[in-house]
Amino acid sequence: MAGKVELRRAALRDTLIEHAERRITSDGLKNLRARDLAKDAGCALGAIYNVFGDLNDLVLAVNARTFKRLGAAVAESLADAPQDATQQLIVMSHAYHHFASQNFNAWRALFDIERPAGEAAPDWYLQEMGQLFAYIDAPLSVIFPDHSAENRALLTKALFSSVHGIVLLGLDEASAGVPAAQLDEMISLILNHLASSPQIS
Amino acid sequence: MAGKVELRRAALRDTLIEHAERRITSDGLKNLRARDLAKDAGCALGAIYNVFGDLNDLVLAVNARTFKRLGAAVAESLADAPQDATQQLIVMSHAYHHFASQNFNAWRALFDIERPAGEAAPDWYLQEMGQLFAYIDAPLSVIFPDHSAENRALLTKALFSSVHGIVLLGLDEASAGVPAAQLDEMISLILNHLASSPQIS
Repeated sequence: MAGKVELRRAALRDTLIEHAERRITSDGLKNLRARDLAKDAGCALGAIYNVFGDLNDLVLAVNARTFKRLGAAVAESLADAPQDATQQLIVMSHAYHHFASQNFNAWRALFDIERPAGEAAPDWYLQEMGQLFAYIDAPLSVIFPDHSAENRALLTKALFSSVHGIVLLGLDEASAGVPAAQLDEMISLILNHLASSPQIS
Repeated sequence: MAGKVELRRAALRDTLIEHAERRITSDGLKNLRARDLAKDAGCALGAIYNVFGDLNDLVLAVNARTFKRLGAAVAESLADAPQDATQQLIVMSHAYHHFASQNFNAWRALFDIERPAGEAAPDWYLQEMGQLFAYIDAPLSVIFPDHSAENRALLTKALFSSVHGIVLLGLDEASAGVPAAQLDEMISLILNHLASSPQIS
């Protein structure tokens, strides 16, 4: 049975995640400060480090939530998608774009989090990523039935990265002159080209 | 004729750019501090702001150099590239990957620089970007001769963004499970698929 201390600790954990999520959403990851969170949560600065090893661990917990929401948004888009596999890829990619656009700071935090060199991402992260990849793999296996699983896995990651790159540079309009208004069109263009290519193994 | 003050100012400008470039290269943009630069250059902290409006302007000057080097690396790769247009796209993209990999911090600074919302990129930035896009546009116009210029421009930006996304997530191995060792393979896969697709307008 969990003791009082454990319960209080778990409650503080949730409170801190909620406040961190709010701060990241409004001010962006790079403006997240432990002392602000301590103030938000009404706890001592040191209490944060009793619950999370460091601020990065707290951000990871926020990112886990963001990933869940992202996965749900993509799954939801699939529910209404046409049967055509290429259209499914396009619909999911547009959903990715819209999620990123509507949750810009939280979405950026997924990728901007500091990671010590050589350290692998945590298991839950890889699982969430794997779920996203599974959504992409399904229509790809319809479009390219003769691709080996290994080749399709590579194509899945390349595709995800491509759409991510288009969304990333597109949402930072000043960055690469990618017109944000044409973002969805660019995604469709790339995916239509890809899907209409003959089998390449 | 430039007076002594102007000459000294120009010399300090160059010195500051060199030191900033060195610091960005070794420690990354986010660790760049004005007080370190003042120490490096042997000048007062305030002197930096006599030459550059703010630290961002100094980073932009470093980025201008990085862009020049990036453009040169891509142009150099083209010099030895085969005549085949698809191969040219692949060779350039691999050159982009290798430049990013070998100049990781300087390359990241190109995209991680803070930009006030709604502010356009400076002219030289758009020119350098335009040069990169011109390199991509040439083989694309061979592969898709029936594309309108407008459509090709969109495809050029989408392609650049796609390769950028693959390189970005690939070099951050923990991020999306993209295996860095297979980066070039992924780029080739995407580009071969794209280039072998029929005309889509």
